[in-house]
Amino acid sequence: MRVKEPDLRATTEAVFQKCGVPKDQAQLGADVLMYADLLGVDTHGVSNMLRSYVQGYNARRTNPRPNWKIVKEGPTTAVIDGDNGLGLMVTPKAMEICIEKARKYGTSVVVIRNSGHLGAAGYHAVMAAKQDMVGWCMTGGGSSMVPTFGAEPRLGTNPIAGNKIGLAKRNGKAMLPGWVAKSDGTPDMDGGAAAEFAAGTLRMQLPLGSTRELGSHKGYSLAAIVDVLCGQLSFAPGFATLATGRRGHFVAAYDIAAFGDVAEFKRNMDGELEGLRNTKPAPGHDRVFYAGLPEHETAIERRRDGIPLHPEVIEWFRGICSELSIPWRLTGK
Amino acid sequence: MRVKEPDLRATTEAVFQKCGVPKDQAQLGADVLMYADLLGVDTHGVSNMLRSYVQGYNARRTNPRPNWKIVKEGPTTAVIDGDNGLGLMVTPKAMEICIEKARKYGTSVVVIRNSGHLGAAGYHAVMAAKQDMVGWCMTGGGSSMVPTFGAEPRLGTNPIAGNKIGLAKRNGKAMLPGWVAKSDGTPDMDGGAAAEFAAGTLRMQLPLGSTRELGSHKGYSLAAIVDVLCGQLSFAPGFATLATGRRGHFVAAYDIAAFGDVAEFKRNMDGELEGLRNTKPAPGHDRVFYAGLPEHETAIERRRDGIPLHPEVIEWFRGICSELSIPWRLTGK
Repeated sequence: MRVKEPDLRATTEAVFQKCGVPKDQAQLGADVLMYADLLGVDTHGVSNMLRSYVQGYNARRTNPRPNWKIVKEGPTTAVIDGDNGLGLMVTPKAMEICIEKARKYGTSVVVIRNSGHLGAAGYHAVMAAKQDMVGWCMTGGGSSMVPTFGAEPRLGTNPIAGNKIGLAKRNGKAMLPGWVAKSDGTPDMDGGAAAEFAAGTLRMQLPLGSTRELGSHKGYSLAAIVDVLCGQLSFAPGFATLATGRRGHFVAAYDIAAFGDVAEFKRNMDGELEGLRNTKPAPGHDRVFYAGLPEHETAIERRRDGIPLHPEVIEWFRGICSELSIPWRLTGK
Repeated sequence: MRVKEPDLRATTEAVFQKCGVPKDQAQLGADVLMYADLLGVDTHGVSNMLRSYVQGYNARRTNPRPNWKIVKEGPTTAVIDGDNGLGLMVTPKAMEICIEKARKYGTSVVVIRNSGHLGAAGYHAVMAAKQDMVGWCMTGGGSSMVPTFGAEPRLGTNPIAGNKIGLAKRNGKAMLPGWVAKSDGTPDMDGGAAAEFAAGTLRMQLPLGSTRELGSHKGYSLAAIVDVLCGQLSFAPGFATLATGRRGHFVAAYDIAAFGDVAEFKRNMDGELEGLRNTKPAPGHDRVFYAGLPEHETAIERRRDGIPLHPEVIEWFRGICSELSIPWRLTGK
């Protein structure tokens, strides 16, 4: 079923508010989720995330009214303690601070500790892009990926998001070759580990590159960099011990005007992106994309036709709206 | 044959000087090369790089006495024009500027245009690490990698350095599955494209991840990010048109003291690295590494036993030393 974005947005805001989140923060959280749902990044939209957020509030793991604060600050840096609110709402604040500092000095880095799930990182990075800056956003922590040659999960950043593996599991599909390790750590290059995943006995994703021969040591090292920048630089708890539930966020902004003429930069970028888009495609493919292009096209379609939701997700909304006395708006087709 | 590092260093310095490079710059260039050779990063040491540098000087593509200068500067930013010198020598200067700015303001980004080969990026990044800062170094440009779904090379940053493919070619080894695309752009997941490479008809490496299913769109996008940060942010020529010979460098430094206590950061980092190192290995592997650990161990061994050079490389040195009247020092065993 497809539901109209304003209806899904209003419902999502209401769910946040019923969980105790103040109105402006509920609106911000819904905006981050709608960003993902409109762009087709369904792993980070309401379908996969909203219920886990509600569970976090209900279990009092997540603070609906966090008193986040800057615990250390310099001309171009800040460390934020998120007071266990969702990253969804504190990270835009962090990026606002970051943009202000970058506007003044050229570059800025802001890190966040004690904060829950970040949502779609692109939302926060794009805030800087809209201000003619290069925007970074990363989130680190967790243990779902095995290092190259390893037999235990240690890091959280991997190319095939756990949510996508969850989706494959939900749809009864097998893992593809190179997605996960077998239980002894050996990369599963045959695929088909679905049963073990479904039984919950296996939670070992492979780094980008899958095997040493394909460059997994690079994917593993990139994941370690993300872990360090997000967690160690924010002095977040658990990173010294690789604790499973550790989490930290990182945003950065580089003001393009500090490097040269912004209009010229944009013309040059347009040229590069057009060049990538016009690359001759390989057999079996119509087009070559660049990051953000398919998402842009999906957003145009979803604004017009609505956001598709799985019947199971609609059912969840029906239950939570009934339970929390939220008016039923998800009446698409 | 193994040669002692001081002998190889002195010979390398002499080669640079005979190419017209001033003594202090020749020493710096040799230091960057020795860094790679000691760590075992042979792709970026004298074996693979020095002769191409000499060719560049001889062909007057590379300026031995560049008058590099800062063409735009802000509190935390600088854009350097390298005046077509080697990146080897100008990038340490860029990192010095970067460190000074980061010390004052917390973060800094310096970019370089019109500069030749960077050498081992780690050399420049480690300069910041030695000053208790997070150090970044990247180089972008070139066209040796196909975008996901593409049939033409467009970007230069890939996990399996072209030099390694060159090494496989030199040793008559076939490409492994997932390293390169076939001539129509289809990922070669069977391996064995050696003949085409040797014939020079094929120069299409795959992104990290190899195929869309294994996450090559992430590797492709990471390569695009590197291209933008190094080339577009430095306003280097050729990036708007994806010109084959385009090149730009990027360094950044984040001062750890601006985020928290440096000693605590190091203790936490030690904990994380020890945790990664102590990961239970998968069958067939003795140990799990982190980036820099095998290199550290190699450097201890090579300082003691010398740097191994292929007979063909020794021959090249013999020729160039004879030609340029450089005393013969490479008398290892």
